[in-house]
Amino acid sequence: MTTDPTEERVLAAVRERRGQVNAAIDEDLPLAAPERLYEASRYLLKAGGKRLRPTVSLLAAEAVADVPPLSVDYRAFPTADGVKVDVMAGAVSLEIIQSFTLIHDDIMDDDPLRRGVPAVHEAYDVDTAILAGDTLYSTAFEIMAETGAAPANGLEAMRMLANTCTRICEGQALDVEFEHRKTVLPEEYLEMVESKTAVLYGDAAATPAILLDADDDVVDALYDYGIHSGSAFQIQDDVLDLTVPSEHLGKQRGSDLVENKETLITLHARQQGVDVDGLVDADDATSLTDEAVEAAVGTLEQAGSIEYAREKARSLVERSKSDLKALPDNEARSMLEDIAEYLISRGY
Amino acid sequence: MTTDPTEERVLAAVRERRGQVNAAIDEDLPLAAPERLYEASRYLLKAGGKRLRPTVSLLAAEAVADVPPLSVDYRAFPTADGVKVDVMAGAVSLEIIQSFTLIHDDIMDDDPLRRGVPAVHEAYDVDTAILAGDTLYSTAFEIMAETGAAPANGLEAMRMLANTCTRICEGQALDVEFEHRKTVLPEEYLEMVESKTAVLYGDAAATPAILLDADDDVVDALYDYGIHSGSAFQIQDDVLDLTVPSEHLGKQRGSDLVENKETLITLHARQQGVDVDGLVDADDATSLTDEAVEAAVGTLEQAGSIEYAREKARSLVERSKSDLKALPDNEARSMLEDIAEYLISRGY
Repeated sequence: MTTDPTEERVLAAVRERRGQVNAAIDEDLPLAAPERLYEASRYLLKAGGKRLRPTVSLLAAEAVADVPPLSVDYRAFPTADGVKVDVMAGAVSLEIIQSFTLIHDDIMDDDPLRRGVPAVHEAYDVDTAILAGDTLYSTAFEIMAETGAAPANGLEAMRMLANTCTRICEGQALDVEFEHRKTVLPEEYLEMVESKTAVLYGDAAATPAILLDADDDVVDALYDYGIHSGSAFQIQDDVLDLTVPSEHLGKQRGSDLVENKETLITLHARQQGVDVDGLVDADDATSLTDEAVEAAVGTLEQAGSIEYAREKARSLVERSKSDLKALPDNEARSMLEDIAEYLISRGY
Repeated sequence: MTTDPTEERVLAAVRERRGQVNAAIDEDLPLAAPERLYEASRYLLKAGGKRLRPTVSLLAAEAVADVPPLSVDYRAFPTADGVKVDVMAGAVSLEIIQSFTLIHDDIMDDDPLRRGVPAVHEAYDVDTAILAGDTLYSTAFEIMAETGAAPANGLEAMRMLANTCTRICEGQALDVEFEHRKTVLPEEYLEMVESKTAVLYGDAAATPAILLDADDDVVDALYDYGIHSGSAFQIQDDVLDLTVPSEHLGKQRGSDLVENKETLITLHARQQGVDVDGLVDADDATSLTDEAVEAAVGTLEQAGSIEYAREKARSLVERSKSDLKALPDNEARSMLEDIAEYLISRGY
């Protein structure tokens, strides 16, 4: 699968920026005192991560400024009125917010592992994980306050960051609520996905435009790009859970079905009269056989539910690419289009 | 004790503003969807609270603007350049941050009660309490972003708010760290108190000055006023735990000693050679007798430790009153002085 040229380009774009992003995280979130608190706060960020959102943010800066990729120092991005803006700080801020949400989510979902290493509440303890998340939360705002952007733009980026965090919390609450609800409409599911996952992509894409004082329609277009591609990413995740062999997935294929997790696929299937709750009868993912998953997937395919989700993800990616038309036609914009494609073409 | 004229004036000032503050909290943090999330988020704020910090904030606005108390709409406070500023939003934002920290602290400290009602993690569950706290966190930043202040001032208020939250987290981490440390110096304890408790007073006092575009020395003076009086408040809390009868305290007198909580008093006593760990031998507060507390207090008094803490609180209050000299001499400033006095003269 790594011979797909779009995927190659995206992975190269990510790779070319990852070193700078990691160095910036280290600079902006140093190991301060109290040391144990900051060790726990940095632990998950140091454990890795593709840095896809920061890459989106840095490419958006280059697309908006209409400069060749990697030609300008991200810490001193020029604006029309001569101000130098640290667009890297915006990218770091959002990566830190992402890390905070993962730490608190892992406590709430009781997930012992994250990125192949023990979750923060396992490596330390629940209290430390709560406090580490809280520390990352405000640190992200501190970093976003220091981009050097014009005050009105800096304030707007902070306002958007706060709104993003509120929406992520709302999305997480909806996700929990849906587990206890009799019926969830596909539109409601999409609203949840937008809040829980996609707003962070929207914010990552729009923030550099705000900081660089771009026109409102460019800011809005980039936000929409992130919302649409980020939603597609999550829907594709649901498809992959059912269609990719366990050894590539890194977890049991079909585990969403065992956990009774509602997805766009199961919600569509219910509307088609499929007995979703009876699709598999395993109690946990480890007792799930590949045959049982095959049979369940066959039923869902017959109901058109997997195709429905694939189509939805595909149409969201098309929308995200069309959102980008508000930006100048340049290499960075074309790489943002690639990333949107990659989010649904990736194998796992 | 309620016949003390300073206390009377302070309680009147708080009472006269509480209705407006509560209404503003309701307006700025409405019961939105998902409803259970916002119910849990609002639960502790609705359970009461004196609203001392918002009162400090509103009085600081009046002192800086040099207007008579309660003469100007807090939602439309005039500035020199004609901008109207919502100083109430700043006060609400900080009260919401305070509420978030209490919710997460109660989880970490495993405290079942708060303000006489079950803590949020008891009334709901731990996951909901984590998420409710996270929601309040970002909502506070959203509200602070909407004060209508000039962008540079709005951004500075957001930056200070973020720094305040980081310092509160650091203070909480230090507090936990001290429980496991062999030696803690009184200076380190004061640093912890400043972070954990006092910065929120500093921020509450300084925010209106920032929003109203006051000179830097006025902003700094109000911040220092809050730091000094807030630290005094916490030290006085430690004194009261030992010196006020249980029935007034609302909890067992001397409970800090049973919980081996280090305070300025115990740290001073250790330096004087007192065997602090052997002061009381009860395993929990309920098995602690008043005689045992009397004896322990007698030992601490003989070592000069209670007087040392009282003196420290007193000198901090004097400093906080002297900080205020950077402000115009008016009724609101005099009420801020009263509040500083009240923080250490209050009986319980």
